[in-house]
Amino acid sequence: MLVNAARIAADFRAIAAFTQTPGNGRSCPTFSPEWGQACGYVRDQLAACGCQTRIDAAGNLHVRPRGLAWDSPAWLSGSHLDSVPNGGDYDGVAGVVVPLEILRAAHDAGRGDLPLELIIFADEEGTTFGTGMLGSLAWVGKMSAADLGRYRNAAGETYLAAGAAHGVCPNDLPHEQINPAHYRGLIEVHIEQGPRMWNRGERVAVVTAIAGRRQWRLRLTGQANHAGSTPMTERRDCVAGGAEIVVALEKLAGELSSAAVITVGQFQPSPGAVNVIAGAVELSIDFRDPDNGLLAVGETKIAELISQIATHRGLTAELTPSEALPAVALDGAICQRLQAAAATAGIPNIPTTISGALHDAAIVAPHLPTAMLFVASRDGISHNPAEYSRIEDFALAAEILAALVQELVTLTE
Amino acid sequence: MLVNAARIAADFRAIAAFTQTPGNGRSCPTFSPEWGQACGYVRDQLAACGCQTRIDAAGNLHVRPRGLAWDSPAWLSGSHLDSVPNGGDYDGVAGVVVPLEILRAAHDAGRGDLPLELIIFADEEGTTFGTGMLGSLAWVGKMSAADLGRYRNAAGETYLAAGAAHGVCPNDLPHEQINPAHYRGLIEVHIEQGPRMWNRGERVAVVTAIAGRRQWRLRLTGQANHAGSTPMTERRDCVAGGAEIVVALEKLAGELSSAAVITVGQFQPSPGAVNVIAGAVELSIDFRDPDNGLLAVGETKIAELISQIATHRGLTAELTPSEALPAVALDGAICQRLQAAAATAGIPNIPTTISGALHDAAIVAPHLPTAMLFVASRDGISHNPAEYSRIEDFALAAEILAALVQELVTLTE
Repeated sequence: MLVNAARIAADFRAIAAFTQTPGNGRSCPTFSPEWGQACGYVRDQLAACGCQTRIDAAGNLHVRPRGLAWDSPAWLSGSHLDSVPNGGDYDGVAGVVVPLEILRAAHDAGRGDLPLELIIFADEEGTTFGTGMLGSLAWVGKMSAADLGRYRNAAGETYLAAGAAHGVCPNDLPHEQINPAHYRGLIEVHIEQGPRMWNRGERVAVVTAIAGRRQWRLRLTGQANHAGSTPMTERRDCVAGGAEIVVALEKLAGELSSAAVITVGQFQPSPGAVNVIAGAVELSIDFRDPDNGLLAVGETKIAELISQIATHRGLTAELTPSEALPAVALDGAICQRLQAAAATAGIPNIPTTISGALHDAAIVAPHLPTAMLFVASRDGISHNPAEYSRIEDFALAAEILAALVQELVTLTE
Repeated sequence: MLVNAARIAADFRAIAAFTQTPGNGRSCPTFSPEWGQACGYVRDQLAACGCQTRIDAAGNLHVRPRGLAWDSPAWLSGSHLDSVPNGGDYDGVAGVVVPLEILRAAHDAGRGDLPLELIIFADEEGTTFGTGMLGSLAWVGKMSAADLGRYRNAAGETYLAAGAAHGVCPNDLPHEQINPAHYRGLIEVHIEQGPRMWNRGERVAVVTAIAGRRQWRLRLTGQANHAGSTPMTERRDCVAGGAEIVVALEKLAGELSSAAVITVGQFQPSPGAVNVIAGAVELSIDFRDPDNGLLAVGETKIAELISQIATHRGLTAELTPSEALPAVALDGAICQRLQAAAATAGIPNIPTTISGALHDAAIVAPHLPTAMLFVASRDGISHNPAEYSRIEDFALAAEILAALVQELVTLTE
């Protein structure tokens, strides 16, 4: 059973072509025509290799070898094909093409019952419907049909309406949820999306935890006023106040832990005129850490520093939570199996790491033994057309996963 | 010759009604229907008082008593009727209704030759055509027809096209410029738009200088990246870099002088997503000081601090000047006359102040002896529907200006 790097490269090229912004990165919203084409490519590749497909009521695509019954305990591996606007070619796609290649290689080797199910989670990024992970959340029962009916895409269609043509079926949601008896565990392959591994020369790594995430919207209100005639000492300037908060948040992240990150990606002053002191500003705060205790400590400190800076400047601060997802420790036994499988694939001391980014694996982890395998991202660039990882590293990840799935390694537990 | 405060109050009410945003402040772009109605109101008031009107080729409206020839040396007084979006009822309007009331009072008193010309400068705020003072700049010859043809309003019309229906006539511009022989000097009445006078209990003040202004657009370029998986130490985050610059600019203003002000009113990150580190930010910088030497010092320090912060963070900074207007010292002799006129109006020690805001007076000052009279703004609030000044203070300003125009005071020079 031989993994073929050239086929993996061809998969990335094929899927990259299904974009709404040719020449300017991958733009592939969930349930868009391009997304449907990308899923169709994977389905066609595997149909040609004797695989069977089903789409669950949440719109997630499942593929198994025909020789493997749907209720037979299998390894689950997959990721997502939706992208951020103008994203890269590897985010999500990597985790689909690696099991795709393993199933193809098994077919080549005449093995029609490899205990591996490929999954394409319908929605991950959160840029299509304003919140992420809808496919996996619905599959594990954390999102009801009523919930899915509330999220709308840019065209104003709900997840249910946009997904209807792609197999989403709200009536079937309750009885098509994940059945842990059908799985041995989930292993999601993903690019790191950070620079640590690339900078250290690590090609692949076992992920032992996924950082939790808290997000807020912060609205500061002060006093819009004339930029020329209002002395510096008489201002209630929301751009200046917001800037002081951004600088303080950046400092706080470094103080919390080496893994903590705080990001302000949105910053919108009103009225936003060159000669008017901003009377309000609205900004986003994204805070992540792999330690749930530190997430709680950080949340308190963030609220405190905002309150102090706002009070000192005579501004009103409204901090509204928009998301709170806990940190997730991944399954130690599967991580050990991955380390052993890596050794058989020629990487005797595969490094371990932590995922700062959230993944579908975090949603599935409470329901199945779950782990992740990261592939190095060049310079850590992601969510960007310049995203790049080496094909040979994906092939290595495929060899490791294939060794595990074939039970070439077993552990005394 | 008696100034009537009730008529001044009625003028403000009438002109306030000509807004594109009733109930939400004055929105009166230059050459809009509302602007035309506001000018028409002033013209009608004065036509009923035996005054004659002409519009110069730049679109500025001039009104003189019929008994005063257009080439007879007169005092010039006026301001503007255009407003920022959702502005207040007093900015600019104050400087029009004060000479309006004086001309009405003169008519009541049977005086048909008062040496006073009212002017409505066609464009001041800069929010209609993207740059300000177009009416006065064209009148003093600093803007050619070709220049005016480059500035466009929100509808895409140039100053020339939008102004054609309001008397703008590019062919006549060269020979309809200001003729200093026709004027004794300019006195512009304006609200302070800052809190100093109100806080000190000063109703009116003589302005001895107008701050100069330098404006820039700053573009920072870093690296867009994933907010979860990029460690704090590996970021080239333009929101964080821009925020550090905003905080440093605020500190610099306080160090330069008590009159220096630096404002960042616009701050636009790209891509502007909650979970993406900003790869670029574009922000505006507005710097003012009444001392031209300090303007030059400040400009150097601003460029230095931006360069230092950008270099330290691995960001690229492009700083592009968008405006540079020198500080203007106003005419000492006219300021003395205003002080003497104030004494005859019952204010023996009228305070002096500096204008942080730019005004048409600064454009005319190189061509005519020029001064300004400020009226206190409640809490310094301006460019805001909450803008407010006391009607009795405008009446006091009118009495002072009327005393000067009637030459009730003369100075031994």
